[in-house]
Amino acid sequence: MILPTFFMLSFLLTSSSCNALDFCVADLKTPQGLAGYSCKKLELVTVDDFVFSGLHAGNTSNLIKAAVTPAFTAQFPGVNGLGISIAHLDLAVGGVVPMHTHPGSSEIIVVIQGIIDAGFVSSANRVYFKTLKTGDIMVFPQGLLHFQINAGTTPALAYVSFSSPSPGVQILDFALFGNDLPSDIIEETTFLDDAQVKKLKGVLGGTG
Amino acid sequence: MILPTFFMLSFLLTSSSCNALDFCVADLKTPQGLAGYSCKKLELVTVDDFVFSGLHAGNTSNLIKAAVTPAFTAQFPGVNGLGISIAHLDLAVGGVVPMHTHPGSSEIIVVIQGIIDAGFVSSANRVYFKTLKTGDIMVFPQGLLHFQINAGTTPALAYVSFSSPSPGVQILDFALFGNDLPSDIIEETTFLDDAQVKKLKGVLGGTG
Amino acid sequence: MILPTFFMLSFLLTSSSCNALDFCVADLKTPQGLAGYSCKKLELVTVDDFVFSGLHAGNTSNLIKAAVTPAFTAQFPGVNGLGISIAHLDLAVGGVVPMHTHPGSSEIIVVIQGIIDAGFVSSANRVYFKTLKTGDIMVFPQGLLHFQINAGTTPALAYVSFSSPSPGVQILDFALFGNDLPSDIIEETTFLDDAQVKKLKGVLGGTG
Amino acid sequence: MILPTFFMLSFLLTSSSCNALDFCVADLKTPQGLAGYSCKKLELVTVDDFVFSGLHAGNTSNLIKAAVTPAFTAQFPGVNGLGISIAHLDLAVGGVVPMHTHPGSSEIIVVIQGIIDAGFVSSANRVYFKTLKTGDIMVFPQGLLHFQINAGTTPALAYVSFSSPSPGVQILDFALFGNDLPSDIIEETTFLDDAQVKKLKGVLGGTG
Amino acid sequence: MILPTFFMLSFLLTSSSCNALDFCVADLKTPQGLAGYSCKKLELVTVDDFVFSGLHAGNTSNLIKAAVTPAFTAQFPGVNGLGISIAHLDLAVGGVVPMHTHPGSSEIIVVIQGIIDAGFVSSANRVYFKTLKTGDIMVFPQGLLHFQINAGTTPALAYVSFSSPSPGVQILDFALFGNDLPSDIIEETTFLDDAQVKKLKGVLGGTG
Amino acid sequence: MILPTFFMLSFLLTSSSCNALDFCVADLKTPQGLAGYSCKKLELVTVDDFVFSGLHAGNTSNLIKAAVTPAFTAQFPGVNGLGISIAHLDLAVGGVVPMHTHPGSSEIIVVIQGIIDAGFVSSANRVYFKTLKTGDIMVFPQGLLHFQINAGTTPALAYVSFSSPSPGVQILDFALFGNDLPSDIIEETTFLDDAQVKKLKGVLGGTG
Repeated sequence: MILPTFFMLSFLLTSSSCNALDFCVADLKTPQGLAGYSCKKLELVTVDDFVFSGLHAGNTSNLIKAAVTPAFTAQFPGVNGLGISIAHLDLAVGGVVPMHTHPGSSEIIVVIQGIIDAGFVSSANRVYFKTLKTGDIMVFPQGLLHFQINAGTTPALAYVSFSSPSPGVQILDFALFGNDLPSDIIEETTFLDDAQVKKLKGVLGGTG
Repeated sequence: MILPTFFMLSFLLTSSSCNALDFCVADLKTPQGLAGYSCKKLELVTVDDFVFSGLHAGNTSNLIKAAVTPAFTAQFPGVNGLGISIAHLDLAVGGVVPMHTHPGSSEIIVVIQGIIDAGFVSSANRVYFKTLKTGDIMVFPQGLLHFQINAGTTPALAYVSFSSPSPGVQILDFALFGNDLPSDIIEETTFLDDAQVKKLKGVLGGTG
Repeated sequence: MILPTFFMLSFLLTSSSCNALDFCVADLKTPQGLAGYSCKKLELVTVDDFVFSGLHAGNTSNLIKAAVTPAFTAQFPGVNGLGISIAHLDLAVGGVVPMHTHPGSSEIIVVIQGIIDAGFVSSANRVYFKTLKTGDIMVFPQGLLHFQINAGTTPALAYVSFSSPSPGVQILDFALFGNDLPSDIIEETTFLDDAQVKKLKGVLGGTG
Repeated sequence: MILPTFFMLSFLLTSSSCNALDFCVADLKTPQGLAGYSCKKLELVTVDDFVFSGLHAGNTSNLIKAAVTPAFTAQFPGVNGLGISIAHLDLAVGGVVPMHTHPGSSEIIVVIQGIIDAGFVSSANRVYFKTLKTGDIMVFPQGLLHFQINAGTTPALAYVSFSSPSPGVQILDFALFGNDLPSDIIEETTFLDDAQVKKLKGVLGGTG
Repeated sequence: MILPTFFMLSFLLTSSSCNALDFCVADLKTPQGLAGYSCKKLELVTVDDFVFSGLHAGNTSNLIKAAVTPAFTAQFPGVNGLGISIAHLDLAVGGVVPMHTHPGSSEIIVVIQGIIDAGFVSSANRVYFKTLKTGDIMVFPQGLLHFQINAGTTPALAYVSFSSPSPGVQILDFALFGNDLPSDIIEETTFLDDAQVKKLKGVLGGTG
Repeated sequence: MILPTFFMLSFLLTSSSCNALDFCVADLKTPQGLAGYSCKKLELVTVDDFVFSGLHAGNTSNLIKAAVTPAFTAQFPGVNGLGISIAHLDLAVGGVVPMHTHPGSSEIIVVIQGIIDAGFVSSANRVYFKTLKTGDIMVFPQGLLHFQINAGTTPALAYVSFSSPSPGVQILDFALFGNDLPSDIIEETTFLDDAQVKKLKGVLGGTG
């Protein structure tokens, strides 16, 4: 009497779930589509597709004294399509995550260690700015300019969660000064002085 | 004077609709993506992609005296991307659809024949439970535990519609007792007794 | 030792679920928003909000010998926001559901009794037309012109499920001939003859 | 001190943006999926994928004295996935865009030159009809029957924007009279006279 | 025999469409929700809710020699919920729309008169920049920095369409220099010089 | 020359952003709708709506030796509509988060301190189970049964991020044994023994 059960329930499970998408671990070798990557075949998926051990501290020996270590779809294919991802943020003393936006993602920061000044500017041009202590969280709405600064005298650590598995990031200085956007165009559209533009192009590798 | 019309209207139709998605009959041989399958080429699509004759009565000669016959994307590729699917439910006398969830779909049942006890539990932990007569309908919100039981003395038939073309199903007993989830983990996370867990693993084929 | 459990789990449930939307039974007295109605207060919701017994046979003593009895949000507030609804379709001998569209919903018909000719026209101007026998299902993609006709010698019954809790319906003849759209505009935009337009306006109550 | 900056920021950019979808220029050679086409490889994308110069005046030497020149995904792959597209509309004196729907898109018309009578019919069967002067705009909600007519004595020009990159179009007369939908079915489902149906099938190439 | 038809069809229309959302003209006096405003009562809606005549030329007698005249939900409540809106752009000789983003909307520009230099920067830090002639269109993907400049010797006109009925706009200079964001924070997060920041705060009214 | 700029840019900002939704801080006193709460008036919003300091350690002096401290919409109205939220998880030695689902949200756990056994079961009935060390993350797809157990000899801490601002939670034991679901129904739909059901009802307060 038990065999028929197996048959029936297996049928139920097989027929209904074989194309049900509990998840869709990204097959990064497929062409990317609008909604992410195609799914790795289910028989190849293991628990290691859903676990990631690479969120260690980053190297902050750089000009901004900061490092972001991401677990986005490219590093952690298990989040593909699940509407969430996370990154590890290290801010050495004096460290800064420069002004930037995520064009298609909101963000929550949780401060694990240290003190962080964080803020964003709304499209109504208001500033929402606060000093975050260890344990505090702050949310940055999608697409708005925001930043984080180590405001303390010790290294700061934080986790930043995103409402997208692949949150793009547009860093203002790189967008303006780190490519071949002509200087006269930058100056016309930002009102920055020519000397300022050229100075920062020098630092950030911009041409034009 | 008629030829120009043809030209113009054909142009309108061709240019605008050649990549407009009225529908997207699943090409089940393509890799599945987050939003379903790629589309069968339009020139290969026929009315038979939109019609399904396989929703006949299922075989209820099993322990739970129940059968679900689905018309989901895997059986009925025409629903791919259309946000809807349907299944046929047979409940012999004493038949039961055990406690289960659909992780990404709501459901409406319409009772065609017989009497069915149906219910769901909300995440606020309330029970919504009712005896449905022939002709009654009940809606089960997405992701919540629910069940159906033949409450009468004759076989019951019903159609169940889903708000997804590929509604996954997670049957509680199979999730707990029909795989290799270790018994001690089950016991710690469900508070069930060891004897109970092992008894049901015996019935449902679980190991560990 | 049990009290702390209650405290903790109750806290878990209360704090997390008090604004989680398992469901949102429509409060039809609130102003309607883009995403449906506001939610009935949880403490007022009962199982009867999720069960509907009004899907009985409709009265087909009319010109088209057909009746549609809906369980949409207006009749069945429990489906609000759940992406699904259902209706009962009666087609007397000779009965017809005239050419119509649902501007924001796909539809599945399941034939419970009788024989039904059903079809739709794609935006690529192809006809998908089939005679459905009892037990057959057909899917009609969102927004496309479609129809159903009793093709047999006995009354036909069917259930029609929708991918929206409030599927609007635009019946072609009513849209053209049942309002005050000026006859000359109709004629210019449909190429119908003036006599034809005026005849159908007479039948359907159109003016202008 | 600058090299480390480059390393860090490049890392930030590379790791986070390599699978972030700022955009997804359609690779029209890939199979189309539910959410559009797969993306052209980023290294092949140029500004010309985002610029289109083909929205010139169309040829209105046809029966309806109208022409629509689209910039949809098929012509302008850069809009793939961006939720927007546009077309150029020419209406010679006496020109008409016949009654039609877009099954999955709303539309805004802006009149650049001339005078246009435009209208739509809601599913509640009301007519929203107005004479638009140069500079006026009108919005047509998704899925509803609508039309545009040159109401002046000079050619009219307009741009029509859509809330979809691939707005399908279902032209009523073509759907009814320009394919093989059997005449008796048309007559049963539209109440049009047989002579009218056959006359328009003659004009529009319908058979059956 | 006609009365029953009216009854039946009216029933069909009334019961199904009374809460179907063909459209949802914003009632701007209601509190705004996540998905826009509540809907104006249907009996109060007229064609004038869907037509807007205010897209005239703006006044470009200002420092940037540019004006944007919007038809967003606030000005044109008929677009509420329809996923589209439009604006009129005037660029006098030398006029500029400064560097800005739309946090939740893509944009298409169509040049009606004149020559416009337009460009955007991707989150991969590439520049997509082109001189647009009259009749050209360009698409700007959601959330990315972009700009437009009159590149000719005559005034330029354009229409800009958006994939949102309420596309927010974040103008870079205002976000940085037009509010109370402290200068030291700006300098730390943008690497701009103190003199530059203070100069632009002077122009744009910033404090702090 | 500066005043006109102000006028123009202010106009731009005012007219376009006054109903643009950068964010929608929940006004918890409004009726909840399908897409969350109505928005707090912009002039009342401060940075404190976007910062939350209540994610401290919870009290684990309870049977399961665990505590979840949420920052969902009810506690942290700033996340309303932003598609993300977070909670603090404390697991004392021997602590367990029992088997549960989130009907409408995926989850990422990041282990801050200690060792955690975590797992989920797919609807294809496979177990994905792993021991997570400090610094590891794991993702749990929407709607699937999952659990976390302190697997070490010291207290464990973690943050759990969700892809919804209001992730409901359905705890299996409470859904089955903590309400008035009749014991015979539980037994029929779960195959649990009567003694087991009654024992757990005793612990969890269930009746019926």
